[in-house]
Amino acid sequence: MNLQTDRLQNGSTKFQVPAQTVGQLRTEMEKELFESVIPFWEKNSWDQKNGGFWNCLDRTGRVFDVTKYGWLQGRETWLFSKLYRTVEKKPEWLAMARSGAEFLRYKALTPDNRIPFRMTADGTPVYIQRKIFSECFYIMAMAEYARASGDESYLQEAERMFALVWQWAFDWKKVGRPSYAGETPLQSLAVPMILMNLIEELTDGRAAPYERELEQCQKAFLLHVKTGEKRVYEFVRPDGSLCTDLPEGRQLNAGHAIEAGWFLQHWARRQKNSALSALAVDIVRWSHEEGWDKEHGGLFYFLDAQGHSPVQLEWNMKLWWPHCEALYAHLLNYSVTGSRADWELFLSTKDYTFSHFPDRTHGEWYGYLDRQGRVSQTFKGGAYKCAFHVPRALLLCRNLLKALEAGQ
Amino acid sequence: MNLQTDRLQNGSTKFQVPAQTVGQLRTEMEKELFESVIPFWEKNSWDQKNGGFWNCLDRTGRVFDVTKYGWLQGRETWLFSKLYRTVEKKPEWLAMARSGAEFLRYKALTPDNRIPFRMTADGTPVYIQRKIFSECFYIMAMAEYARASGDESYLQEAERMFALVWQWAFDWKKVGRPSYAGETPLQSLAVPMILMNLIEELTDGRAAPYERELEQCQKAFLLHVKTGEKRVYEFVRPDGSLCTDLPEGRQLNAGHAIEAGWFLQHWARRQKNSALSALAVDIVRWSHEEGWDKEHGGLFYFLDAQGHSPVQLEWNMKLWWPHCEALYAHLLNYSVTGSRADWELFLSTKDYTFSHFPDRTHGEWYGYLDRQGRVSQTFKGGAYKCAFHVPRALLLCRNLLKALEAGQ
Repeated sequence: MNLQTDRLQNGSTKFQVPAQTVGQLRTEMEKELFESVIPFWEKNSWDQKNGGFWNCLDRTGRVFDVTKYGWLQGRETWLFSKLYRTVEKKPEWLAMARSGAEFLRYKALTPDNRIPFRMTADGTPVYIQRKIFSECFYIMAMAEYARASGDESYLQEAERMFALVWQWAFDWKKVGRPSYAGETPLQSLAVPMILMNLIEELTDGRAAPYERELEQCQKAFLLHVKTGEKRVYEFVRPDGSLCTDLPEGRQLNAGHAIEAGWFLQHWARRQKNSALSALAVDIVRWSHEEGWDKEHGGLFYFLDAQGHSPVQLEWNMKLWWPHCEALYAHLLNYSVTGSRADWELFLSTKDYTFSHFPDRTHGEWYGYLDRQGRVSQTFKGGAYKCAFHVPRALLLCRNLLKALEAGQ
Repeated sequence: MNLQTDRLQNGSTKFQVPAQTVGQLRTEMEKELFESVIPFWEKNSWDQKNGGFWNCLDRTGRVFDVTKYGWLQGRETWLFSKLYRTVEKKPEWLAMARSGAEFLRYKALTPDNRIPFRMTADGTPVYIQRKIFSECFYIMAMAEYARASGDESYLQEAERMFALVWQWAFDWKKVGRPSYAGETPLQSLAVPMILMNLIEELTDGRAAPYERELEQCQKAFLLHVKTGEKRVYEFVRPDGSLCTDLPEGRQLNAGHAIEAGWFLQHWARRQKNSALSALAVDIVRWSHEEGWDKEHGGLFYFLDAQGHSPVQLEWNMKLWWPHCEALYAHLLNYSVTGSRADWELFLSTKDYTFSHFPDRTHGEWYGYLDRQGRVSQTFKGGAYKCAFHVPRALLLCRNLLKALEAGQ
């Protein structure tokens, strides 16, 4: 397939998928989301005694680690708030969202405004990361819960924390990480990328009053995008130059780049910026092309831009979340370009993902496969996997398929 | 095979391996050590400009990361000092050892007595770990270089640092790690284990003047050994009780336990403590039995004592160092017990190890294989792999085989 030709033809020769096919796919997404994934978390993750959620759940849903994880408390609170607000007014979804939001705000939050990365069941800190991500997910949770519940104080809390995170994001020392004389200053893709999405979540897509912050995130993100070599680098120097004599300076993470691609596309479309939209389309395509394992299928976790042996032991594993991101990103690309190539990428990603990750016996998806696609860890929830990437991707795909069905 | 019976028969029915077989194996170890492994590091790792060693070397020996790693500077300095002192007075071995020792002492060491985990080529800190291991390997390097060079000031430096590390080892806050209210106090096997070996290296096996510290390490180590269930746990509470509701409290690392087994055996034999010696034999046997992959061969990296899916993504990979430790530990067991079972464990470990890890084209060994035994990363040196486990195991095996040949 020739992506370039497809894009030139966009508009005049839009690839029309039959409404029936779109409808079948929408039904499949809904079935997966509402009959397998959400019930697993509803049934197993709510800690009604302490509030918040059990995160570490084995294949069948039993708790195998009695601590809780800050990223995941925020993410699951966000999810059930979003479901309640945008899908259906189920009282138990609001109750779960409230439980998570109150646990985060009144039990997990420390006096110095940190959300522990790991905590006891009652919210006492076990470990505080020297990173901003726990607080980012806290903000997402507070903002979405405010809209779900109508309690404005949660939105104010989200805005209060955003101001702190914004400062921390560009001055790491404030979250306790010392800097050393020999360090090569490198900027991580994760920071502008998550903030770009966070502003979308915090403002429900309006950007106001964070237009300037959004612009700064977009600029910082674009420093990672190297159109000449069709790559998104995880780490670049603050001026955007590459640092290829260090493994982190050559690090590629297709899943991350693809996720950043759709974060960018959401803004590009709102901003009616067609050049930015075309770039976002390309980012997803390039990253899929380079990151896809031609031998065994699936997206590699890490690659080295110069072909060195990646230093991450798990580099060739197939993780659930890059496939979730790719699923939605290709469908979004198709909705933008009308290109057959994008539709086919969506379908082939869906085939790999739906045939490898779901657990048809106990519900939800496995998170970690080996290179050959065999399940490597059987748990459904862990320190990084929770009720987030799978249901978010399924919900986004379902919503977009619905819009395509309706001819929007 | 019945280990219990073998041990009871020890002495009366000692399994005698023909001297010729022992001699062939000794020759094989020497060939691997002196014709493949050592030449790789001699040729590729010495940084003659800045002093010290390049650590990150690809399959062919080219540098793929221009930073240096503190653990590895200490380990390689120790190795070349040991080779010079105990194998042959090769001037280049002493020159490499001196280069490493001077780099560590005069370039890497920080004003507050830390050795960076990672540093620039000239020793400027890139990252300082909140752990004591860089300093432990510094002490090993200083002590062995002092004996190799005859420069007593390096031994004094080793003793000075040991006093600091001893304090830090039992008060983590001193190396910068905050503690949190919700933390379950857990003691890591790594600390008493490395200190037990460090006292052996620092005192060349005499223990004096660190007899009390050694006793404390042995006691702390034994808290991890659960004879009832035939296991060594990586983390236990300070009173030795298990914490099985957390994954780290259930964590098993066969390679670590096997390594700790031979560290303990070295002291048990010097202390003429036959009960401790028998326990050290058992630790190696149990850990091998539980850690060995019955389906694909090789030792798993991590297991969960209750059979939960291990949380480490790399749990089922086969790493070079557990196999290096097992190689020597089984041979040492055989030298202690005279048991056929121990000899056979040595042989089967040697077969797996020698048929999977060595690179017959470019020398040295691969470090990381997937569960099925396929090479997963091709580099020879990385942030944790250097001129240490492979040559140490080969040297220890060669020395012990030599002693067995001589009927000692």
